[in-house]
Order: sequence, then structure tokens, then C-alpha cells
Amino acid sequence: MPTRDLMSDSCAIARTLAVVGERWTLLILRDAFLGATRFSQFRRSLGIAPDVLTDRLATLVAHGVLARETYREEGSRAREEYRLTDAGRELHVVLGALQQWGDAHLPWPDGPTVLRCGPGGDPLHVGFVDDRGEQVDEVTFRPTAAFPGV
Amino acid sequence: MPTRDLMSDSCAIARTLAVVGERWTLLILRDAFLGATRFSQFRRSLGIAPDVLTDRLATLVAHGVLARETYREEGSRAREEYRLTDAGRELHVVLGALQQWGDAHLPWPDGPTVLRCGPGGDPLHVGFVDDRGEQVDEVTFRPTAAFPGV
Repeated sequence: MPTRDLMSDSCAIARTLAVVGERWTLLILRDAFLGATRFSQFRRSLGIAPDVLTDRLATLVAHGVLARETYREEGSRAREEYRLTDAGRELHVVLGALQQWGDAHLPWPDGPTVLRCGPGGDPLHVGFVDDRGEQVDEVTFRPTAAFPGV
Repeated sequence: MPTRDLMSDSCAIARTLAVVGERWTLLILRDAFLGATRFSQFRRSLGIAPDVLTDRLATLVAHGVLARETYREEGSRAREEYRLTDAGRELHVVLGALQQWGDAHLPWPDGPTVLRCGPGGDPLHVGFVDDRGEQVDEVTFRPTAAFPGV
């Protein structure tokens, strides 16, 4: 199978997938949004091999999605923590969009297990928004002059 | 590496990734949004092995994201076409969110290669929207009673 370097692809979707498109990465980020910060928390939640988790966290740190910080509790040895950066937090729209599709098309018998809430507790969905902050239901993807063709 | 059945996960993000989370799948969908319908078009655009493409298309058809249709041009043999279903088209928010992050954090030197446009040609972004159709910038992910815990 020929491999391509997604990071140098002219398509922004491909470049983003170079950072978050590997197996488990988006679920690591989901756990980070739900409050996980430590290797052991991600590992327990996902049940994945330590070397895979190490690799995925390293990719996210290398691309500025997570920041690795060292902390030491009184009387304990130093530990690493992984925290979402501002750029990492911007991926909340990606996760919200994936969640919304799953709840609509692959519903869980007991209903959604996690809700998206605004500051007042209102339910939120993910959608396309114009420059006035109003939702627009129809979108077209339109190549620009920078599009290299297919 | 222990495998888990993402499709039976209580998390809607995981279930969606069971359908679209394999390598290449989101780029196949990107091409579908840009107008590709035929095996040869996806193959040329992505440069992936035929067996991988066959496998990914089968998953998308099995989960109702793409519909496979047979058509025959005058004097030619029958061919298969792959078209986005309504459920498939709802994934435009996922692709738009991935694109937006890439354009913001991994910018292309010549600027975005594909724009998201509304019916009047206005640029659109992807965001969280309340029930009144207005954008909300702060979102929290909140577990419900159906959340099985971590």
C-alpha cells in the first residue's frame, strides 16, 4: 500500500488527520475533554497497549494539541500530565460533530451518554455558521484557486 | 493490542469512529462531497490499494453512509456508483470541522484550497449552535445518567 504524507497534503482535512486520524487518538482527546490528564487514566479508559498510547500522546504533544507538564504531589514521585492546549480545545467541534452523528444514526438504547451544553445548560448541536453567528443549513465545498485538482 | 468493539461502545464518538474512523475513510467521504462517485475516481484521488478501497466502501455502504447503485452507459458495461445518502451528507459537519482546524493550525502556504460556502456564497465556519440557531462559543461535555462511568 503506497503511503502518502498527509501532513504535506494541500487538503486541510488530510493535514488534520495526520495529527488526529490514527486509531485511538480522537478517543484520547475525548477523554481529555472529559477531564483525563494522566497516562494511567487514558490507559484505563481505553484499554490500549502502553506503547500505542505513548505514541499517540507524543504525536499530540509534538503538534501542540496537548501540553505535557510535570507535577509532583507532596511525598510522591514526579508525574506527567497531559493538558489540552488552546489549539487542542478547538477540536471540540470535531468531537461534537462525531458525537452528534453517532447519536442520530447509531443511537444508544438509553439515550445519549454525554450532552453538549452551553453556559446556561442549554443543549447545543454542531452546525455551519455564517459571519453573523447564525446557523446556515446548506453548505457547499468549493475549491479555490489554490486547489491543485484531483 | 486488545481490540474493542467500538460499535457497541456507549460513547457516540466511538460508534461513529467504528464507521468512519479507519484510515482513508474520511478522505473517501471528502472526495464524495467533492463529486466523486466511481471506484476509479476515489482510487485515483487517494492512490490507495484496491482491496483497501473496496473494504472501506463496503463499510460505508453497510452502515448507510454511501448507497451503491449500478448504472450502464449506452454501449458500455454496467458500473457501480457510490452516492452519499442523507445520513452520509450529515457528515459534512465532521469534515468541515476537520478542515477548519487544519486551515487554522496547519495552514497551507497558498491559503485554503477548499472553502465552505452558504447558499449566497458566504464563507461558513463550523461551531456550536443553540436551539434558536445562534452560535455559542462555550461548550461543556456533560455525562448523563446513561453514562457508564470510566
